Amino acid sequence: MPAADPDKLAAAVRAGDRRALGQAITLVESTHADDQAGAGRLLGLLAPAAGKSIRLGISGVPGVGKSTFIEAFGNHLITAGHRVAVLAVDPSSAISGGSILGDKTRMETLAQRLEAFIRPSPAGRTLGGVARHTRDTILVTEAAGFDVVIVETVGVGQSETMVADMVDFLVVLMLAGGGDELQGIKRGILELADLVAIAKADGDNVPAAMRARAVYEDALRLMRPHGSGWTVPVTTCSALTGEGVHEIWQAALDHRVAATASGAWERRRAEQRVGWMWRAVEDGLGRAFRSDPRIAASLPGAEDRVRRGEVGPDQAAAELLAVFTARP
Amino acid sequence: MPAADPDKLAAAVRAGDRRALGQAITLVESTHADDQAGAGRLLGLLAPAAGKSIRLGISGVPGVGKSTFIEAFGNHLITAGHRVAVLAVDPSSAISGGSILGDKTRMETLAQRLEAFIRPSPAGRTLGGVARHTRDTILVTEAAGFDVVIVETVGVGQSETMVADMVDFLVVLMLAGGGDELQGIKRGILELADLVAIAKADGDNVPAAMRARAVYEDALRLMRPHGSGWTVPVTTCSALTGEGVHEIWQAALDHRVAATASGAWERRRAEQRVGWMWRAVEDGLGRAFRSDPRIAASLPGAEDRVRRGEVGPDQAAAELLAVFTARP
Repeated sequence: MPAADPDKLAAAVRAGDRRALGQAITLVESTHADDQAGAGRLLGLLAPAAGKSIRLGISGVPGVGKSTFIEAFGNHLITAGHRVAVLAVDPSSAISGGSILGDKTRMETLAQRLEAFIRPSPAGRTLGGVARHTRDTILVTEAAGFDVVIVETVGVGQSETMVADMVDFLVVLMLAGGGDELQGIKRGILELADLVAIAKADGDNVPAAMRARAVYEDALRLMRPHGSGWTVPVTTCSALTGEGVHEIWQAALDHRVAATASGAWERRRAEQRVGWMWRAVEDGLGRAFRSDPRIAASLPGAEDRVRRGEVGPDQAAAELLAVFTARP
Repeated sequence: MPAADPDKLAAAVRAGDRRALGQAITLVESTHADDQAGAGRLLGLLAPAAGKSIRLGISGVPGVGKSTFIEAFGNHLITAGHRVAVLAVDPSSAISGGSILGDKTRMETLAQRLEAFIRPSPAGRTLGGVARHTRDTILVTEAAGFDVVIVETVGVGQSETMVADMVDFLVVLMLAGGGDELQGIKRGILELADLVAIAKADGDNVPAAMRARAVYEDALRLMRPHGSGWTVPVTTCSALTGEGVHEIWQAALDHRVAATASGAWERRRAEQRVGWMWRAVEDGLGRAFRSDPRIAASLPGAEDRVRRGEVGPDQAAAELLAVFTARP
């Protein structure tokens, strides 16, 4: 691929050129050192046009039906006049090279619409790398005129927290009758949720979904109040019948109105920016350490001694850090 | 709690004092700055007695029956004369303050045996913090004479990789008929597995479990060969009937014999130690940055400007890093 000119690319992205959008995301996702400056310049040029979307997180354990929900939800939003970008954060892709959204056919009708843009999780990255690139991709899609950005994540553990740290409104999909085994995980997720939706509430599942809704409403009442003063709604929904899909969007809009009025909206985004600054600091510290000539000289010996068990990992790290922080 | 003397504590742990074992783990898990030196000394004293166990990872998605499997497996090992420590790595506990193994009654019979020691995931930590403390806890339990250490983890994403990085043999529990939604995650996990066991293979589930076993055997044959030359076995098991439990242990022993002979055992542990050294370097870099007086002076202003949107997170990070790496 020829090196793209960031200035031309930024103009084309802002003009709505779809091919340029793909190229721009490829550039910000690039791990090549040569692309760093261009990616930085591109993001700088796009920044003034970014930040105006509603950023929605959609999470839930595998099997809860995230893709079918996002397909129904995205089509509903497009019918209402919105332009919808769907991005994925998938920690397992760091190992396997991609999984959720890897196959666009999983959101067949949505993928065919010009008002939608679907992007799989960047593959072969660390969890931190996935997060950073997804954050940049949010900004690029916003500059391209998408006014709703949906970030999908597999609903367990750290990827959850990561997505909560980049969206305005986190929707957690749950299944009725998930069993006691899930309680531990549910608790962690519930603390992050801005809305809980019991999915697959159709046909024979309706009574169980209604019961689950009541259980979650009770659980959320018992938990400490949400930081922003927002009362987390519990809804039921079905991607099959479309039931509840509009209500979830309406709740996201209500939340924006309330959070904007209270200042919670801007505070949340401000804290997210500070969090991103810290991630960038951590990345930069690692790079500075690895590229320090004194470390380059000491490192192979230190690694060998740790490998052979002659020195413990903690002691070797302490010695390297002393080298790095010593003034010449 | 009174400050424990690391020398006395180390002696008591090595003598098999159960109360000292609990205190020693509390000390290495401590985040208090005052405890760092004592924890380091304790680990140094225990190190010569550590490292001699078989370290087993047990993972699988919520609902696969990890706890009941570990209970059956642990009791089987104790009957065979082993002493078994069970530790948990749970990324969701970083959010919620504990979930898996939070309730010891989930392994009721195992928890009552003197030959077993069960320790929940350290709560309220980052994922990296959970990993570091679990690694230290492995060393402490080994020094206390436990010759099998089982590390349990919820089977999705990053916690998986983390546990694979601290054990000798990773057992992945799967359910028959998990559905296509799980394929992406399964692929990532399969690449890490040293053994795959189809769980709950009892009663009406037996035919489906046998079919799943054949499917996984095919899938593993198609994947690139395991680094060590080990052929990953696929078994079925039932915590209810005890079927397959002994076979899994036998496979772990066979793996140790083969890997020791080929040198893969020691190479894996050596690479794990190097990985731990890097984690310790990253932690130390963060501490050095935060405690640098120049950063302490610049940080509040930088955070404020990022919060107000006057400067982007990446640019602010670059400016702080320039301050930190500048020679005085």
